[in-house]
Amino acid sequence: MNTGARALLLVAHGSRLSEANAEVAQLTDRLREAAGEQFEIVTHAFLEIAEPDIPAGIDVCIAQGAAQLWVLPYFLAAGRHVRDDVPALLDQARERHPDVVINLCTHLGAEASLPELLLQLADNYKP
Amino acid sequence: MNTGARALLLVAHGSRLSEANAEVAQLTDRLREAAGEQFEIVTHAFLEIAEPDIPAGIDVCIAQGAAQLWVLPYFLAAGRHVRDDVPALLDQARERHPDVVINLCTHLGAEASLPELLLQLADNYKP
Repeated sequence: MNTGARALLLVAHGSRLSEANAEVAQLTDRLREAAGEQFEIVTHAFLEIAEPDIPAGIDVCIAQGAAQLWVLPYFLAAGRHVRDDVPALLDQARERHPDVVINLCTHLGAEASLPELLLQLADNYKP
Repeated sequence: MNTGARALLLVAHGSRLSEANAEVAQLTDRLREAAGEQFEIVTHAFLEIAEPDIPAGIDVCIAQGAAQLWVLPYFLAAGRHVRDDVPALLDQARERHPDVVINLCTHLGAEASLPELLLQLADNYKP
């Protein structure tokens, strides 16, 4: 039985532009507000360039009491990062934390409802 | 009065990986199905690396009868591409096509409903 907290870890690529990394942090804040009771812990990590990296992000969630993690790749394309790099880091994390369930979600670009969200963006256009 | 067709142009970065560009083309197909009567024309273009480029994508829409275009940046971060490169290309297109209204939408990463979509992704997770 798994009675610990549920954590959502948003994983972005990481950028040399600090503004781009700050956008991810702001999105994480909005995600935390929207999560309500679905996730007790919501945080983010970066694959490259920026901090915290993915192992650190996972360890933070677990230190805060997460028993189950959903890792959400904030990537548009299923390139090498999504197919190989993120899964390999999660395998390593599972070895470090055998009692924690670590789930890898589909990357953003493959989400079924993305067309509706894009149409909404066009609909929201104000000159 | 503007009686021509409405076009939606999804603008992606473009990748050296043909699979990533094919993902954008597939998303455009799904976008076209979802658009219903909101847009008569739905197509895509790439900022760099892949074809068609943005000027070509705009010209295709106009050749198909578009009198008004919504350009939708399929980008997560408001970097140089979103802030400078795409707007500059649209300014050039407006000079080439003074009778066509070309609207630049907010980039995907800034869409207000993105947190809900990300939570849905986590909710859809199946082991």
